[in-house]
Amino acid sequence: MRDTPVTGAIMTPDTQQPPAALAPGSAGIVRPECAQFDMPLALAGGTSLERYQLVYETYGALDADRSNAVLVCHALNASHHVAGCYEDDPGNVGWWDNMVGPGKPLDTERFFVVGVNNLGSCFGSTGPGSINPATGKPYGPDFPVVTVEDWVHAQARLADRLGVERFAAVMGGSLGGMQALAWSYLYPERVAHCLVMASTARLSAQNIAFNEVARRAILADPDFHGGRFYEHGVVPARGLQVARMVGHITYQSDDVMAEKFGRALRSGNYGFSFDVEFEIESYLRYQAEKFSRYFDANTYLLITRALDYFDPARECGGDLARALKPATAEFFVASFSTDWRFSPEHSHEIVQALLRNGRNVTYAEIAASHGHDAFLLDDPQYHALVRAYFERIAEVQGGR
Amino acid sequence: MRDTPVTGAIMTPDTQQPPAALAPGSAGIVRPECAQFDMPLALAGGTSLERYQLVYETYGALDADRSNAVLVCHALNASHHVAGCYEDDPGNVGWWDNMVGPGKPLDTERFFVVGVNNLGSCFGSTGPGSINPATGKPYGPDFPVVTVEDWVHAQARLADRLGVERFAAVMGGSLGGMQALAWSYLYPERVAHCLVMASTARLSAQNIAFNEVARRAILADPDFHGGRFYEHGVVPARGLQVARMVGHITYQSDDVMAEKFGRALRSGNYGFSFDVEFEIESYLRYQAEKFSRYFDANTYLLITRALDYFDPARECGGDLARALKPATAEFFVASFSTDWRFSPEHSHEIVQALLRNGRNVTYAEIAASHGHDAFLLDDPQYHALVRAYFERIAEVQGGR
Repeated sequence: MRDTPVTGAIMTPDTQQPPAALAPGSAGIVRPECAQFDMPLALAGGTSLERYQLVYETYGALDADRSNAVLVCHALNASHHVAGCYEDDPGNVGWWDNMVGPGKPLDTERFFVVGVNNLGSCFGSTGPGSINPATGKPYGPDFPVVTVEDWVHAQARLADRLGVERFAAVMGGSLGGMQALAWSYLYPERVAHCLVMASTARLSAQNIAFNEVARRAILADPDFHGGRFYEHGVVPARGLQVARMVGHITYQSDDVMAEKFGRALRSGNYGFSFDVEFEIESYLRYQAEKFSRYFDANTYLLITRALDYFDPARECGGDLARALKPATAEFFVASFSTDWRFSPEHSHEIVQALLRNGRNVTYAEIAASHGHDAFLLDDPQYHALVRAYFERIAEVQGGR
Repeated sequence: MRDTPVTGAIMTPDTQQPPAALAPGSAGIVRPECAQFDMPLALAGGTSLERYQLVYETYGALDADRSNAVLVCHALNASHHVAGCYEDDPGNVGWWDNMVGPGKPLDTERFFVVGVNNLGSCFGSTGPGSINPATGKPYGPDFPVVTVEDWVHAQARLADRLGVERFAAVMGGSLGGMQALAWSYLYPERVAHCLVMASTARLSAQNIAFNEVARRAILADPDFHGGRFYEHGVVPARGLQVARMVGHITYQSDDVMAEKFGRALRSGNYGFSFDVEFEIESYLRYQAEKFSRYFDANTYLLITRALDYFDPARECGGDLARALKPATAEFFVASFSTDWRFSPEHSHEIVQALLRNGRNVTYAEIAASHGHDAFLLDDPQYHALVRAYFERIAEVQGGR
């Protein structure tokens, strides 16, 4: 098992970070933990999971009054491994290591940070690749379709287990931001601050369309075997690769792709074939191949569906302010100028709904060239804002 | 064989046009013609086609002085069937029927209009599905990779055959616009006016990336059989469908997708499955399935590669003005505000290069909500501009 960032951009060879153990400000050597839950979890789809496990990591120490916990929620293909690295795998650096660590914007010398792998994922928490106790075989397609809200309910149980009654903050980017937002209205009394980056309160038709392309590619791969590929000793690598390529394009801005790759050719000349010729092709294939070696195809289906379904306003006649009415947290919302997956307009909608409800909102629209991926990168303006926000939280708490 | 528009949008049930035979201003019943060429055509890739055929249609009549011919070049999945309909298939209306016909912006009572299916395509001109005389089997992957310039050279031979020394205009949208542009520098003395809509002088990294996803989907389909699927009696329908879905998303603006589909559900409720649930999914699958029934997978590979390769400035150190230096035509260039495939900036680059060369350029940036597809739709402002441009051409010629 190797964890990777939410999108591949920060793991590309040209931007790969040095082992965290060596880097100043690193969370250092970390170890994942596992929590077992034997009480059934009712799911939005009408079924329930009888028992499950959640894999998580923590960084920093919980205060005596248990008031300094921060939950970091992950996006599509990331995991509980938010920061630091593993003793036996020092190159495996957490996906948000630039954000979380001693002295970093989310300072683990002040805060007790929790990263948790979501249900249905493939990094240790119960998911389609786990053994279904009812059959003794992997769940595969029998793993229930889960929602952002289902994840939040499972995370709340983990918080109980950790003795965290109320989070100082719940935060996340993209799909992680949806979870943070869902915490604010599902468990208002348990969230003091909510940080929602590069996210949305609902996918657009175009967003859903890209997810559907990815799912089609996976479902159409003969090695998918209706989701029971585990039993056939294969993985639908080709479908997963196409899915990943589509995703990857939407994570980056046109501009940054132009700047990084442009029309550069690998050999300098046209080969008049369908092999890799342009650098951008090579990059996409490399990322896709890497992805298909560690990511689970059923998980990809589940997580894209959770993205599609997230729409808190849906049960309120489309009125997002009404859906967010229960929330009492203070909010930090950030968007990035070149993010065309969840453009700043998506964040505006959230901010406007919160302001209509009289919530306290800090909103930053950050000029950044990297598109959706920007929330993962250490843009100085962005990090300074997050740092300032957490410093304020710490001060209000009588920070240490 | 059914021809369809360059992108599927104008063939969807909600916008399908009545049979042209009944519509006022229709080019009426038309009949494709076929021209055989036995002189080898040297190709950019270094090989040559020994013999080939081009299927074409004409509308209107060639003047006695042969000065009123207009060549209409097609884009990715369209054909020679530009306008009118077939006697035995009245519902099969040409892909640019709203633009070309008696009294239409490109008025077939004044102009002799030629539509030609490009080499490598799958609508009658020689392509991968044609019999390779060397083997007696379909070319399949042995059909050479062709370029925009190759197409133009083949079109020039067809013009010779038709007795057209010089076109009053060469026009096209998207990939068709690239051909029009290539005519202007390859055969400057043969083009009086050049109309380039929703096009570009070179694909961006993002454009190439989307093409690469489409190609991967096709190449990875086990039914592709290395391009020799004809001999196996199958077609790589699943790969083609994914390719088409990706393309389709890029042809439409986010806004128009939101307006047409939004987050509407087919059943009104979430089904907690990976079946079609959102209207946008249903639409994409419908379009993709239709496409996979008539379009050739090898052609899709070839045409996306021709798109990738088009880059006239490449041999001039990136200097587009220098590449376009030979052109003597007057130009009409149009872009569409919500086209994110070939955004207005792509057209700006062409216009600026032409102006640097002292060319006469009419440029229109049209406010249109439909994205790249807009060049196919009958936006009144757009059509009025094209009409006015052709009226000016006709007048200068001493129009009839």
